[in-house]
Amino acid sequence: MLEALNAEIGSLRYGEQPPELYDPIRYLMALGGKRMRPLLTLLSSSMFTPDWQPFVRPAIAVEVFHNFTLMHDDIMDAAPLRRGQPTVHVKWNPNVAILSGDVMLVCAYALLSDIPDGQLRTVLKKFNRCAAEVCEGQQLDMNFETRTDVQEAQYLDMIRLKTAVLLGFSLEFGGLMAGADEKNTRLLYEAGESIGIGFQLKDDLLDVFGDQAKFGKQVGGDIIANKKTFLLIKALQLAGGEQKRQLDGWLHARTFDPQEKVRAVTGIYNALEIGRLTEAKMNEYFALGLTCLEGVTAPPERKAPLRDFVEKLIYREN
Amino acid sequence: MLEALNAEIGSLRYGEQPPELYDPIRYLMALGGKRMRPLLTLLSSSMFTPDWQPFVRPAIAVEVFHNFTLMHDDIMDAAPLRRGQPTVHVKWNPNVAILSGDVMLVCAYALLSDIPDGQLRTVLKKFNRCAAEVCEGQQLDMNFETRTDVQEAQYLDMIRLKTAVLLGFSLEFGGLMAGADEKNTRLLYEAGESIGIGFQLKDDLLDVFGDQAKFGKQVGGDIIANKKTFLLIKALQLAGGEQKRQLDGWLHARTFDPQEKVRAVTGIYNALEIGRLTEAKMNEYFALGLTCLEGVTAPPERKAPLRDFVEKLIYREN
Repeated sequence: MLEALNAEIGSLRYGEQPPELYDPIRYLMALGGKRMRPLLTLLSSSMFTPDWQPFVRPAIAVEVFHNFTLMHDDIMDAAPLRRGQPTVHVKWNPNVAILSGDVMLVCAYALLSDIPDGQLRTVLKKFNRCAAEVCEGQQLDMNFETRTDVQEAQYLDMIRLKTAVLLGFSLEFGGLMAGADEKNTRLLYEAGESIGIGFQLKDDLLDVFGDQAKFGKQVGGDIIANKKTFLLIKALQLAGGEQKRQLDGWLHARTFDPQEKVRAVTGIYNALEIGRLTEAKMNEYFALGLTCLEGVTAPPERKAPLRDFVEKLIYREN
Repeated sequence: MLEALNAEIGSLRYGEQPPELYDPIRYLMALGGKRMRPLLTLLSSSMFTPDWQPFVRPAIAVEVFHNFTLMHDDIMDAAPLRRGQPTVHVKWNPNVAILSGDVMLVCAYALLSDIPDGQLRTVLKKFNRCAAEVCEGQQLDMNFETRTDVQEAQYLDMIRLKTAVLLGFSLEFGGLMAGADEKNTRLLYEAGESIGIGFQLKDDLLDVFGDQAKFGKQVGGDIIANKKTFLLIKALQLAGGEQKRQLDGWLHARTFDPQEKVRAVTGIYNALEIGRLTEAKMNEYFALGLTCLEGVTAPPERKAPLRDFVEKLIYREN
């Protein structure tokens, strides 16, 4: 499936003129990535029909949409690198990244516009909602940057919107295209949403406790940047006395040795058992997601590939 | 119709949380404007059916889309004001304007997603194409800023993409919803595209030769900013010798008295009869557009309101 997806992505024609508009799309899409979202769509559809090939092209809509959000998020976050390469707003300029992202969102809709009549409106409406929620999540994430009072539930809702609803839609979309009934498509959506929250918690964990050799990014990056992750929010909630004083000190320090900060904050996390608590929360969501998948009515041998893929996501180390 | 449109626009719920995402949409949509595009849609549909009320809500999609392009264009052009009020990226910040614009594009699609089954795919595909072309036009416009060799035909194609295709779609969209046949919807699209090009040429003209008391913006603004309008491109093409030297001088002047520059460049335009030449080109497009409208098969009394509206656009002074 991944080969079919990558072949289709490689052959997509987004548009030609002017090149500043379409080259950045090709550039970003060619940087790779796991193609997790369209794979979820195809694995989901293949639970209901062996004939998943017609869904490859529409499935790419979720990958194009995801990369559109990356292009615009990278401007907003002033991120210099994406998958180890210069971001579009750095390689070209912010205006190109704004406009090229806009046309990318239109391309995602264009890919969706080819699905059969019976599903077109349903898919569109669910995608519209998902797309708006992803924007809401990104806005909340930016709002959290300047706040120090973010609560655990608010954080979980933010990552649900920013990350998880698109995984929910990706699974649901596969089911819808393959003719799954309403009960199954609802379970698929809920599975994706829960797995998506677990997935982001895993990301938060790997950023602190990941193996630098396997993890693609700099371990401790979130700590250095004071990023409001589940770990930090939990630590702020649990720390008291001297630990609270130390944590606040690191959060407000203007000049510091990055490695020392990572070591010290990780030490506080360890003392408060933040890793264990985050893992427990993550496992809760993964378990919820897997239970939803188990509830989907489809032959066990057709369900196995999706379950195996999700388990690989759960146990991934990067 | 305008009342029905404004009432519907006033009652639209784009979304609520977080407010930074949705307040800018309400703000920009409430700044007003002529609502020209959805009016074109409704006037177009009412040529084929007296029952245009069901089309009010979907027609707003073209107004929301147009305002989305304004929100993002204003960031790219670093524009401080829109309709005399602070632009979104100034009143909030550029990140808010990027993300709020994104969700606005999604809102436009959401409004389109409610049209009847028989037309949904056709409308979507035509809208996707139109939306991508508008982005292409904006990118070309930005590219032209740093070029001194823009040709008349390139300029006309840029304004076709940036401005005219959306007017074409607006008219076509009304016809499609009202069940017009292919010949008629094609004529409507072509009418809108031609009128749109004429409309932008009129804008270029008013910026130099408009009556300051009636024109909303500063007369001569394009001259001060060296904006590549049809007038400047034509003048650069026709000027020779001393006129060319003077025009180049003003284009490269770093410090100058704005009023003196406007007076001098307008003088060169007058000497070269640029106003008359631009008017001739504009009238050519308006005539083409009106001929297309005349060719549409519908009862004359049903065609009159759209023709009258277009003639008002043609003879407008602001």
